[in-house]
Amino acid sequence: MSSTFGHAFRIHTYGESHGGGVGVVIDGCPPRIPLSTEQIQRELDRRRPGQSEIVTPRKEADAAEILSGLQDGLTLGSPISIMVRNTDQRPGAYDEMAAKYRPSHADYTYDAKYGIRSASGGGRASARETIGRVAAAAVARQVLDTFHPGIEILAWVKSIQELEADVNPETVTFDDIESNIVRTGDAAMVEPMIERIKAIRADGNSVGGVIECVIRNCPPGLGEPIFDKLEADLAKAMLSLPATKGFEIGSGFAGTLLTGRDHNDAFRNIDGKIRTTTNRSGGIQGGISNGEAIAFRVAFKPTATIMSNQETVTNTGENTELQGRGRHDACVLPRAVPIVEAMATLVLTDHLLRQRAIRY
Amino acid sequence: MSSTFGHAFRIHTYGESHGGGVGVVIDGCPPRIPLSTEQIQRELDRRRPGQSEIVTPRKEADAAEILSGLQDGLTLGSPISIMVRNTDQRPGAYDEMAAKYRPSHADYTYDAKYGIRSASGGGRASARETIGRVAAAAVARQVLDTFHPGIEILAWVKSIQELEADVNPETVTFDDIESNIVRTGDAAMVEPMIERIKAIRADGNSVGGVIECVIRNCPPGLGEPIFDKLEADLAKAMLSLPATKGFEIGSGFAGTLLTGRDHNDAFRNIDGKIRTTTNRSGGIQGGISNGEAIAFRVAFKPTATIMSNQETVTNTGENTELQGRGRHDACVLPRAVPIVEAMATLVLTDHLLRQRAIRY
Amino acid sequence: MSSTFGHAFRIHTYGESHGGGVGVVIDGCPPRIPLSTEQIQRELDRRRPGQSEIVTPRKEADAAEILSGLQDGLTLGSPISIMVRNTDQRPGAYDEMAAKYRPSHADYTYDAKYGIRSASGGGRASARETIGRVAAAAVARQVLDTFHPGIEILAWVKSIQELEADVNPETVTFDDIESNIVRTGDAAMVEPMIERIKAIRADGNSVGGVIECVIRNCPPGLGEPIFDKLEADLAKAMLSLPATKGFEIGSGFAGTLLTGRDHNDAFRNIDGKIRTTTNRSGGIQGGISNGEAIAFRVAFKPTATIMSNQETVTNTGENTELQGRGRHDACVLPRAVPIVEAMATLVLTDHLLRQRAIRY
Amino acid sequence: MSSTFGHAFRIHTYGESHGGGVGVVIDGCPPRIPLSTEQIQRELDRRRPGQSEIVTPRKEADAAEILSGLQDGLTLGSPISIMVRNTDQRPGAYDEMAAKYRPSHADYTYDAKYGIRSASGGGRASARETIGRVAAAAVARQVLDTFHPGIEILAWVKSIQELEADVNPETVTFDDIESNIVRTGDAAMVEPMIERIKAIRADGNSVGGVIECVIRNCPPGLGEPIFDKLEADLAKAMLSLPATKGFEIGSGFAGTLLTGRDHNDAFRNIDGKIRTTTNRSGGIQGGISNGEAIAFRVAFKPTATIMSNQETVTNTGENTELQGRGRHDACVLPRAVPIVEAMATLVLTDHLLRQRAIRY
Repeated sequence: MSSTFGHAFRIHTYGESHGGGVGVVIDGCPPRIPLSTEQIQRELDRRRPGQSEIVTPRKEADAAEILSGLQDGLTLGSPISIMVRNTDQRPGAYDEMAAKYRPSHADYTYDAKYGIRSASGGGRASARETIGRVAAAAVARQVLDTFHPGIEILAWVKSIQELEADVNPETVTFDDIESNIVRTGDAAMVEPMIERIKAIRADGNSVGGVIECVIRNCPPGLGEPIFDKLEADLAKAMLSLPATKGFEIGSGFAGTLLTGRDHNDAFRNIDGKIRTTTNRSGGIQGGISNGEAIAFRVAFKPTATIMSNQETVTNTGENTELQGRGRHDACVLPRAVPIVEAMATLVLTDHLLRQRAIRY
Repeated sequence: MSSTFGHAFRIHTYGESHGGGVGVVIDGCPPRIPLSTEQIQRELDRRRPGQSEIVTPRKEADAAEILSGLQDGLTLGSPISIMVRNTDQRPGAYDEMAAKYRPSHADYTYDAKYGIRSASGGGRASARETIGRVAAAAVARQVLDTFHPGIEILAWVKSIQELEADVNPETVTFDDIESNIVRTGDAAMVEPMIERIKAIRADGNSVGGVIECVIRNCPPGLGEPIFDKLEADLAKAMLSLPATKGFEIGSGFAGTLLTGRDHNDAFRNIDGKIRTTTNRSGGIQGGISNGEAIAFRVAFKPTATIMSNQETVTNTGENTELQGRGRHDACVLPRAVPIVEAMATLVLTDHLLRQRAIRY
Repeated sequence: MSSTFGHAFRIHTYGESHGGGVGVVIDGCPPRIPLSTEQIQRELDRRRPGQSEIVTPRKEADAAEILSGLQDGLTLGSPISIMVRNTDQRPGAYDEMAAKYRPSHADYTYDAKYGIRSASGGGRASARETIGRVAAAAVARQVLDTFHPGIEILAWVKSIQELEADVNPETVTFDDIESNIVRTGDAAMVEPMIERIKAIRADGNSVGGVIECVIRNCPPGLGEPIFDKLEADLAKAMLSLPATKGFEIGSGFAGTLLTGRDHNDAFRNIDGKIRTTTNRSGGIQGGISNGEAIAFRVAFKPTATIMSNQETVTNTGENTELQGRGRHDACVLPRAVPIVEAMATLVLTDHLLRQRAIRY
Repeated sequence: MSSTFGHAFRIHTYGESHGGGVGVVIDGCPPRIPLSTEQIQRELDRRRPGQSEIVTPRKEADAAEILSGLQDGLTLGSPISIMVRNTDQRPGAYDEMAAKYRPSHADYTYDAKYGIRSASGGGRASARETIGRVAAAAVARQVLDTFHPGIEILAWVKSIQELEADVNPETVTFDDIESNIVRTGDAAMVEPMIERIKAIRADGNSVGGVIECVIRNCPPGLGEPIFDKLEADLAKAMLSLPATKGFEIGSGFAGTLLTGRDHNDAFRNIDGKIRTTTNRSGGIQGGISNGEAIAFRVAFKPTATIMSNQETVTNTGENTELQGRGRHDACVLPRAVPIVEAMATLVLTDHLLRQRAIRY
């Protein structure tokens, strides 16, 4: 199901970048969860364009309206519909894109699949589509806080190109990350990263990087064996985000260099709890959380839209060139941080509700 | 749904390592697809223990029986049930495992989730569970060959620890890979890899590595935007395999070092077809195949079972030690190659059928 | 999934009677289907309150807005979001209902399930919820017309209490039905039915009846064996409508009086086509359409809201009385006709797309 | 999904009447539920051919084997696979059926849908398919007994043709029903019904009738508003059974003759519980159980197979005749009673688990 995510906590998103609006319908949310428009708006503001000097200057208010499922600050158990109107529409700016396929965008593949395409603003393939995810995750966050207070889900910019932040997933705080516009957890890397983004933008070019995310205080027992392993659902969630090219959890690709003797996580009784002394498993074993920190990394390619002349073809297959223009992020990572957190929140909430159906 | 994979071509697997048997029920397979038990058995034999000197010497016949859905060599359109009896059962060899949690296995997390566990042979978390996947993929392969002949899906061992094979995803052949027991596509690396596996096994230790997979001649237009992007479903499929820790597609993590100008894949009209001159996108753009080779890599951690004494806890939370024993793979990658191919085949077949519902 | 219907053509509805609005998100709609707001509005107008002298006089404009999935009159293949604002809200009129459970309504059961309830206007249990279904079916109708022109889906009032219309499902026309405000297909019963409804309303009472529906020119082969039989999905669709108490297809309950010899439908070659000489099967055999007219009937109970004093309890379980008031239909059947057609249209479209995935 | 039923407690059935076997895979069953093969076999024996003088004399042992998901009498939380081998196969007896379409059977529609058909014994459309449902329901029964002891689900033959039993759904017992081979709850109707079945069989003819079912002690709050209403899922479950033509709940079709004033169920506080003084709602309001007895009726048409010469066509569309033969039930209702109970059990268990995910 193309625009549906989750089994117990299910979200259905809709909307093109230009048109009436974008939004999400959440089904399966338990009743009597405290919820306000402000909680949703706060997260939308974290992903919004124009929030700082290193992101796209587009002005989009992205004001959320809750259409259903809420009464006097409590969820009703019925579907929660959240809509954000599209406002900053400049269809004219995209005329050329209708006839020419932007390299490394989804223009050609949408045409190949559907035989029709909303060329204006990227249509459904626009990053604007993630608004519904972030809004839904703000609701999911309330479910987690109600059923299992204390779960922390934090993401940060781990690297931009070769600039790598030194961040301890066990101790980094929300304030560490939100205190800087690049959203990294390493104070020493804030300026170098900002400078890199500004320099690359000045050159009409773009960069990518890696976002790291940690889930702390996750209860043991979440995740389903076999296909819906917790790491499998996280991997799918992350690779479903625009511009992502890779996912690794725990020891990841580097772990393939170790031997089993060096890689295994020994169990120990620590303060009366079953813990592991190392965490190369990344908090998940056999697809199920073991109570340790769940830590994973997501690779984002450099933004496809660049302010250069590029070779491409028209939608009738003729060779041509395309000059990039418009207002785009030279680096999507600062705005992608809350989106990564959102997808992790959705996965965890879904598995928490699924576990409730069978536990006793 | 824990043991269900796919939407249009759906598989439901079952079975513990010890017990009556393991198997799969396939629903949604189109009618009149040619199918034989031999086609299924051939793929099961590629993943079977005891097939060479570098894999576990366990003897498991793994003989497939088709219980339903087939008549005179053609599928009926009804569910296809395939069963493999368990035969080589030595419950006694696992007594200690019932009381002690094996490090970096799923023993503890199954107990945390279910409050009960099939300790014998790993239960549902055994690699034996993948039999159902491989059998189902053999059926899916027939669907692909019927509806879209010429799609090639090949996987090979890309690396074992730091030993890395030099393989061209565009040209490597099935025979290149199957000609050697380690299943790599680089003749020069066959002996070094075999020697490494033998040496590590002799030491009672284990190793991991990376498997690379390519899908060639995939038609453009497969994959769904948003959540069920083709790469998202591939990522989930791969991370649902035991011992996997990472997935990357196209330029992957290394692509984060490039700028957009160097990373973008230019479109060109080549011989009347819309092609890209490079393939850092990995054959997928916006979640939809673009007709180029789909190439991805999967990280496998070193086998958790090692022949050493390890610290752990009992299922009542007391510190103890566990001595590894039994007949295990010191390196799972040679046997994992057909399993990676199987999961890729299942994902592609599912998306091919999904696309048929809407195309015209 | 509470508010999701369909597998290939899937709809997700939302909305309470009072609040921001009601609506639907349609996922799985094929691309390039001609669609206009007018087509949706036309069907919404058929179910709208205030349309005639025998339905509730409430004034609700029920104006549909398409938020996504449409461009220049063609569907894009992406989710189609349709919203209808709530406007005629009088929360004050429902104060008493918040504290007292209306007999034969869903007030008590919502409280029992969720521990919270939108008392105003019936909340999610309001008939207003069917707006999303009707809007989605208007889109589905366009899919049918594109892929399989000529399929007719017609419903009419078969009976009100003991007043039974004489209608031939093979020949009745849309105009026959729409020409009268009670929406029956028998001209002789129009006045008696209208008089009955007016008399019962004048008495502060209510009535129910039976709606019959026929699907003509349905291609053979739609419907899935076993659980998703075409009649099973129709039965679920109809029993999911408010106030329904029964469903029967073909010979129905009366068919249980016949013997097999009298009940069986003989096959004959008629004009080169395989046809049946009678149609007690109701156009479906083994869950799959056989090309004959699909005819079924749905029982609607008398409207639960009556203008009388009734015994009931408060939400704290104390005996009390409740005086019905408000503007309600004394008979829901005239407005339920387009809703029955809508659900039949959704079922048929879903099965048509499902069949496309496997046919060749 | 053709052969999948349920959302939280999901079953996947497979198997043709002739072939390796039939069976079911149950996914979503909670762990640590007591379960034995005997519990499953007991229910299979109630639906088995050859159990009495008024059902088909075919000898089918229908011995269940549990292949997975069980250990030492407790469920593991993993998929439970149950298989029944096919044994009494006489393909020769069905040669004529391969070429000629049996009237009011699924022969023609399977060919229309799939272009291929398992003619032998009815294939997937055989009543033998219900074995998987009954086996799964025996497991579901254990889940109900564990989570909510005291829920009773009883079905009985309400009528055969015009012979109607007088049975009180509130008080009838399992022993009342099982004490007679026709499985009615009215001692006075046992002999008349048996005589009718014997007479009709002696004439080479067949009869149908109505089965009534009651669910007693169902907790309030089960069922989902909108599409997955409890009565909607029950209707689908029943209409998914072979030979069914109708479903009604509570007052049903007869309720359409009443006015609202006579039909409404008044709420009263009775012994400290919120109860209704009448039960025309049939135990469900707004799709959600209200704690009263859930009572519904299912219409079964006369068996399509009769021992007469009938007009039909060949699979190439030529007019011909077909002489019925073989060993069939002249009346399916006595054997259908446990199958109706099974489907009701599956629906209720699914909704019980779904409710557990959101309640707190």
